[in-house]
Amino acid sequence: MAVRTPDPNPGWLSDDELRDARERLPILYVEAIPVRLDGIGQVTEVGLLLRMNAQSEMTRTIVSGRVMRGESVRDALYRHLEKDLGPMAFPQLPASPVPFQVAEYFPLPGGGLYSDSRQHAVSLCYIVPVTGSCDPRQDALELTWLSPEAAASELVLSEMEGGRGSLVRAALAHLGALR
Amino acid sequence: MAVRTPDPNPGWLSDDELRDARERLPILYVEAIPVRLDGIGQVTEVGLLLRMNAQSEMTRTIVSGRVMRGESVRDALYRHLEKDLGPMAFPQLPASPVPFQVAEYFPLPGGGLYSDSRQHAVSLCYIVPVTGSCDPRQDALELTWLSPEAAASELVLSEMEGGRGSLVRAALAHLGALR
Amino acid sequence: MAVRTPDPNPGWLSDDELRDARERLPILYVEAIPVRLDGIGQVTEVGLLLRMNAQSEMTRTIVSGRVMRGESVRDALYRHLEKDLGPMAFPQLPASPVPFQVAEYFPLPGGGLYSDSRQHAVSLCYIVPVTGSCDPRQDALELTWLSPEAAASELVLSEMEGGRGSLVRAALAHLGALR
Amino acid sequence: MAVRTPDPNPGWLSDDELRDARERLPILYVEAIPVRLDGIGQVTEVGLLLRMNAQSEMTRTIVSGRVMRGESVRDALYRHLEKDLGPMAFPQLPASPVPFQVAEYFPLPGGGLYSDSRQHAVSLCYIVPVTGSCDPRQDALELTWLSPEAAASELVLSEMEGGRGSLVRAALAHLGALR
Repeated sequence: MAVRTPDPNPGWLSDDELRDARERLPILYVEAIPVRLDGIGQVTEVGLLLRMNAQSEMTRTIVSGRVMRGESVRDALYRHLEKDLGPMAFPQLPASPVPFQVAEYFPLPGGGLYSDSRQHAVSLCYIVPVTGSCDPRQDALELTWLSPEAAASELVLSEMEGGRGSLVRAALAHLGALR
Repeated sequence: MAVRTPDPNPGWLSDDELRDARERLPILYVEAIPVRLDGIGQVTEVGLLLRMNAQSEMTRTIVSGRVMRGESVRDALYRHLEKDLGPMAFPQLPASPVPFQVAEYFPLPGGGLYSDSRQHAVSLCYIVPVTGSCDPRQDALELTWLSPEAAASELVLSEMEGGRGSLVRAALAHLGALR
Repeated sequence: MAVRTPDPNPGWLSDDELRDARERLPILYVEAIPVRLDGIGQVTEVGLLLRMNAQSEMTRTIVSGRVMRGESVRDALYRHLEKDLGPMAFPQLPASPVPFQVAEYFPLPGGGLYSDSRQHAVSLCYIVPVTGSCDPRQDALELTWLSPEAAASELVLSEMEGGRGSLVRAALAHLGALR
Repeated sequence: MAVRTPDPNPGWLSDDELRDARERLPILYVEAIPVRLDGIGQVTEVGLLLRMNAQSEMTRTIVSGRVMRGESVRDALYRHLEKDLGPMAFPQLPASPVPFQVAEYFPLPGGGLYSDSRQHAVSLCYIVPVTGSCDPRQDALELTWLSPEAAASELVLSEMEGGRGSLVRAALAHLGALR
């Protein structure tokens, strides 16, 4: 044990390893739709991340990221919420591990709702109330809070990456807030 | 006991009693959205009932009815499915009593999704796969099978009674079939 | 109409009216199981109310109460949480109206899990994280916080009113915390 | 491209590739608990598979297997149901992709409910009503139908592989059938 080079974070993969894995297996993701609630739990706003994609187009997305080997779903969710919303967002993580929806992303469009050109990913999707202030880090430019009506609009739907507008609508429907 | 007039069905209320109850309490309903599934469980069609309302307008609705005193939610669901779809529909009743959505109908419009001028009703809503042939009875004129896209359209939404188009969309979202 | 005594709170029923209603209809309830969560949303404790029943026996129960006419499910939940846990409990009301379970209480034991000698009640059951300090009011003597293991034990099960121990187990199972 | 040996089923991995993948990523599984329902949807029996493990001990398990790259969750569920229950089981696949529970299996026991010495696996768990006759294939010896009470017993719990007895209890709780 003593002479072994320590592996501080075996869940992290090199770019090559990740590309290799993506050719072999579906990749497990967690995704979170940040929401603001009023005092009796009704959704008042939905938070969407704005960012520039590889084609220099502005696109919208939600909190999203991979579950690493050895990491629990909750820990992955917490890590990606902090990464995308900053340390002062104070997200209320779900008490139950049951997602409100499962989204399947395939590399080739084939009639399904969701697509991801890089990989076959399966995502456990949660609605996460946020009570603090959000300060997106990394590649996101900003977090925009929209009314439920605006978040469900055709315009926003068309701006969302990989079909995630359907996921926002499904979240609103689950909350009893999709007309 | 012997001379007491038997009450074969104490759950039934006279029109006066029901009107009286509606002034005092929220009324518990069950509602079911009939669906056709393919071999791996994906929704292919949604069944909507067509009927003439009190204003002689054609409207669309779903399977809906009251839970009687002493009756279980399952028994009520079964009774209303048979009443609205006929005896040969072979509905697959849900294994779990957990509804996919709870709909609250208020007599006065107040910002909520659902309304019912007669009463305050709270409805447990289920998605019910149907494998047989449907033969609507009572006041429904016919059952129309629509594609998920058609069932979620603005046109159909505008034809549904009491805001139930939102319920159809919520059902499709839960099934992973609302774009 | 002009001379009618105004009814400031038509949802409240007199004792006679409530008894009358209970003979005619299932009564809609909301119930809440208070929980404490850790930073990533895992349940650490379950809150059970201790009280003396009509037979002067100590029994345990959860937050429970009727939905009044004209009142939303959320408002009813909030009202009963405040009544049973006090004004400083800071409950996090559920973002979705979908309950984790529906409990059906019948006056006569008949093989079901739940019973209530007074009435046929149907209850929408929610898990409610609580972050503040609880100060039970009304007839409850105290709120006891138990570990998930203790809350699921046979002893606690036997002390719960109307079969609600099964509801506590179902809540823990939904949270991924029932062994 | 022309001289490339075709890969008829790229989702299948060699033993080496699978071992390699298990060292890098959480592996996505689907699991199904087969149930028999009565006419109104209440669970009457739970199906558990009996098999000999690597230590020649009799153990019980449920339908379980990996999702392959490019395969949908529904297709994986169907494939494993057919593999474990035979071609005449006529399973009713869930209409919604939302699982009733998510089970996380870790190689080292660490306080979680589920373990798998081979890997870190995350499993989407479904309750699947079965109407036909089951004829387990492959390594399972037989499928045993147990009453809900028997399936939730301590004895059966102790015989289940990897902690899956907790999953059976969670399924029964979701069905309103765990006392």
